Amino acid sequence: MATLFRSSRSLRPLTRLAAQQPARSSLRYTSSTSSRHGAAAAASVDSSSTETPFFPDEPAGPTVKTAIPGPNAKKAIAELHKVFDTRSLNMMANYQHSYGNYIADLDGNVLLDVYAQIASIPVGYSNPSLVKTAMSPEMVSAIVNRPALGNFPQHDWASILETGILKVAPRGLNQVFTGMSGSDANETAYKAAFMWKRQQQRGGAHVEFTDAEIESSMNNAAPGAPQLSIMSFKTGFHGRLFGSLSTTRSKPIHKMDIPAFDWPQAPFPNLKYPLNEHVKENEAEEKRCLEEAEEIIKNFHNPVAAVVIEPVQSEGGDNHASPAFFRGLREITRKYDVLLIVDEVQTGVGATGKFWAHDHWNLQDPPDIVTFSKKAQTAGYYFGNPELRPNKPYRQFNTWMGDPARALLFRSIINEIERLNLVENTAMVGDYLYAGIETLAQKYPQQFQNLRGQGQGTFIAFDNPKRDEFLLKAKTLGINIGGSGASAVRLRPMLIFQKHHADILLDSLEKLAKSL
Amino acid sequence: MATLFRSSRSLRPLTRLAAQQPARSSLRYTSSTSSRHGAAAAASVDSSSTETPFFPDEPAGPTVKTAIPGPNAKKAIAELHKVFDTRSLNMMANYQHSYGNYIADLDGNVLLDVYAQIASIPVGYSNPSLVKTAMSPEMVSAIVNRPALGNFPQHDWASILETGILKVAPRGLNQVFTGMSGSDANETAYKAAFMWKRQQQRGGAHVEFTDAEIESSMNNAAPGAPQLSIMSFKTGFHGRLFGSLSTTRSKPIHKMDIPAFDWPQAPFPNLKYPLNEHVKENEAEEKRCLEEAEEIIKNFHNPVAAVVIEPVQSEGGDNHASPAFFRGLREITRKYDVLLIVDEVQTGVGATGKFWAHDHWNLQDPPDIVTFSKKAQTAGYYFGNPELRPNKPYRQFNTWMGDPARALLFRSIINEIERLNLVENTAMVGDYLYAGIETLAQKYPQQFQNLRGQGQGTFIAFDNPKRDEFLLKAKTLGINIGGSGASAVRLRPMLIFQKHHADILLDSLEKLAKSL
Repeated sequence: MATLFRSSRSLRPLTRLAAQQPARSSLRYTSSTSSRHGAAAAASVDSSSTETPFFPDEPAGPTVKTAIPGPNAKKAIAELHKVFDTRSLNMMANYQHSYGNYIADLDGNVLLDVYAQIASIPVGYSNPSLVKTAMSPEMVSAIVNRPALGNFPQHDWASILETGILKVAPRGLNQVFTGMSGSDANETAYKAAFMWKRQQQRGGAHVEFTDAEIESSMNNAAPGAPQLSIMSFKTGFHGRLFGSLSTTRSKPIHKMDIPAFDWPQAPFPNLKYPLNEHVKENEAEEKRCLEEAEEIIKNFHNPVAAVVIEPVQSEGGDNHASPAFFRGLREITRKYDVLLIVDEVQTGVGATGKFWAHDHWNLQDPPDIVTFSKKAQTAGYYFGNPELRPNKPYRQFNTWMGDPARALLFRSIINEIERLNLVENTAMVGDYLYAGIETLAQKYPQQFQNLRGQGQGTFIAFDNPKRDEFLLKAKTLGINIGGSGASAVRLRPMLIFQKHHADILLDSLEKLAKSL
Repeated sequence: MATLFRSSRSLRPLTRLAAQQPARSSLRYTSSTSSRHGAAAAASVDSSSTETPFFPDEPAGPTVKTAIPGPNAKKAIAELHKVFDTRSLNMMANYQHSYGNYIADLDGNVLLDVYAQIASIPVGYSNPSLVKTAMSPEMVSAIVNRPALGNFPQHDWASILETGILKVAPRGLNQVFTGMSGSDANETAYKAAFMWKRQQQRGGAHVEFTDAEIESSMNNAAPGAPQLSIMSFKTGFHGRLFGSLSTTRSKPIHKMDIPAFDWPQAPFPNLKYPLNEHVKENEAEEKRCLEEAEEIIKNFHNPVAAVVIEPVQSEGGDNHASPAFFRGLREITRKYDVLLIVDEVQTGVGATGKFWAHDHWNLQDPPDIVTFSKKAQTAGYYFGNPELRPNKPYRQFNTWMGDPARALLFRSIINEIERLNLVENTAMVGDYLYAGIETLAQKYPQQFQNLRGQGQGTFIAFDNPKRDEFLLKAKTLGINIGGSGASAVRLRPMLIFQKHHADILLDSLEKLAKSL
């Protein structure tokens, strides 16, 4: 294995390795299966059989050789469990053998991966362009010489930001605070919101802290540690550290036994599907939720500094709302002078068929803050208003403040997205996939309930009454697929997921539907 | 620059690059200056002039060519400020030109770095062994194929942990939860403590959550979100996210305007120096602090689940306490069945002359949890008690749960520490450096007040009445040095800091003392 890297002239060692993987098996599907989803194929000018693969040396389909976990994986899991909690383990992988849309395990199984590390792999395993970046002198230095960015930024940090993270900044936002995880991104955004709100209450950036504020802050008491809040939405997910977990409302298992702030939650619209058959009810439901949100903002005993919301509630079960709902929320937050934080940790970076999911909303007035992580492979938050920079240094600060190595990787991901036109690809393949599942839903209505995500790229989900069995069985058909909420099957393919992959997935989904 | 990496047969490209840097200037110091610190040199069998340098191609001393920031740095800082807050910027660096103990800027200045990215660079800039690791196929895959470790760990994760992070686990602790930053490490440790305490109150791992707990947890209310607390110490620092910041008690600027939990703080001993002249007073002070800590644990209205403490309060001004104090705290926490979390984020990984600073305490009964980050280049917490694994999966979980790339780097750091015997080196050089500063303190008592850290490796500090001016002026003499608390100058050299570096530092300290 290591010998493949000895010659650095080979820039695609992992590619070559992947190409050596067995690509054919009894479970291999070819693009000819697309004819089975005639409705979907007909809806598109492009047909999957004429599609040019982004990675021609990708496996042609999944390979399933053993039960998963197989004997080698079982041994490795037992070994790992001695020192690391493996009870949430889904599959032990060999990433050096994984390539493109395919994840390999330790027993020769190679699965089409439409879960992608909980929606975190953007452009494929062992992507050759990213491998090249990973081997670059800039990356080597970034790995070895990790700076404390707030104190000792590296000479090219502005350029790395401008040609990377900021190049894809949401419209209206031109500043960034870099961090390390989605939780971290949201919590630093909340901190910015609290500082901004108190500054506003205080009368501006020039007003000094009072002695009472200074003293009480050190005692974790008001006014220095104020009784302000962040409003989030029921079934939303924003992370698992103490501040972010206080806004997370997904499942009790995420929150149990952890002290939390007394912060409010508004209802998130519970839409009925298919949308076109429930237009009036859904409008009424969204109106009700907006009214309750407004009521909380007006009256909650710990005043709301900011509202945080996901464009699609991703851990909470793939709950969608209409662009009109989000525009309404923008209006309300503006009316009461609270910030709107859009948590794009899971929705961001292309998977909804727009680079940022909130691009679907056609906002006149952009969000105040947008947080990112996962597919960006780094984390942080964007903002545009200079007042969101705290009035003094060292208020928003930590040792690392992000990771230049991951910022370099995100830049490389952005370049790959542009090179292969992957956002547009995802929009197109998403439509194709959605149409295919819609056809399946007509045929097997029990197995594909509440199909959602139309026009949202590959960010598609449906409910299945035997969801966990569905997910488990998918592996035996060569598909790695994830769930969310109580009963949702959530599709989170990478941005390099093409129609021929969709055909494999659709074929497996039909097999699953038949077998359950 | 990039061409240096084209041939991968060259395993020390950054080394070679660094060697090309101008090493000689009017401000260069040689080991012959050690004779000026005769007392220190005499105290040691080994003299700096006979010392073998770890990195023979390191610059022989600092180079100062311009004011810092110089013209190139000024331009780059202005550019960066447009998109990134630079008000906390100390120095803009070029890390590809930095090597060993020396940090380079954009104007040809090369400084001896005894601050080391806020105590985060363990074995030198562009360390050749680390460069080799950074270019390895394992690292390239880890960069490109970042897993969701809790769900899809990589096949060699157990081995990476066992031959790396766990190889240096503190005595009595054999499990790890990996994370991404010091704040993250502490907050996940706090979560573990709260889950453990509630489980204990509930009557064991087998007792199911009640409906009341399940419902209230989703509303951020007790009993599901319990009114428990973490006790920390005045002037302690444990991070800046919402839970960790609630235990941080360093400075108002760190806490202002951020909502905080109603958690208690105990006094940290305020020792008088020199220690041998204040034995009785200091004993009384430590007794007072322990009594107050016990009082809080017994009576605080939000029951204490865990106590968190730094072996040396590092951001709060380099405040030390005696091993007896920490043994007393271990006794009290055991007596009242609360966990003892030792925050080794800044003290860990060798700088105190032991691998973990709490190794100095001779505890019979180890801490329950030890957190790490900074020099480890990754983060997380160690524990030993299996009950600190939550009773169900997905309670302590997040997408990435650490970073295999950083875990690989820490393993390489550990190997480098062993290869060069760097913990012992740091103990020895620390004694030499301490003796040298002690001599200076006798000569310039105003400039080196409350010298502390004897026997604690290079983890040395002193107070200076014009501290900020002292730090600024140090740069003009070719030394990058940091402060902490209100008036402390804190030394945080890397583990590869040798006597000949100490001589350069001592010489500069004397120049500074004379000039202020």
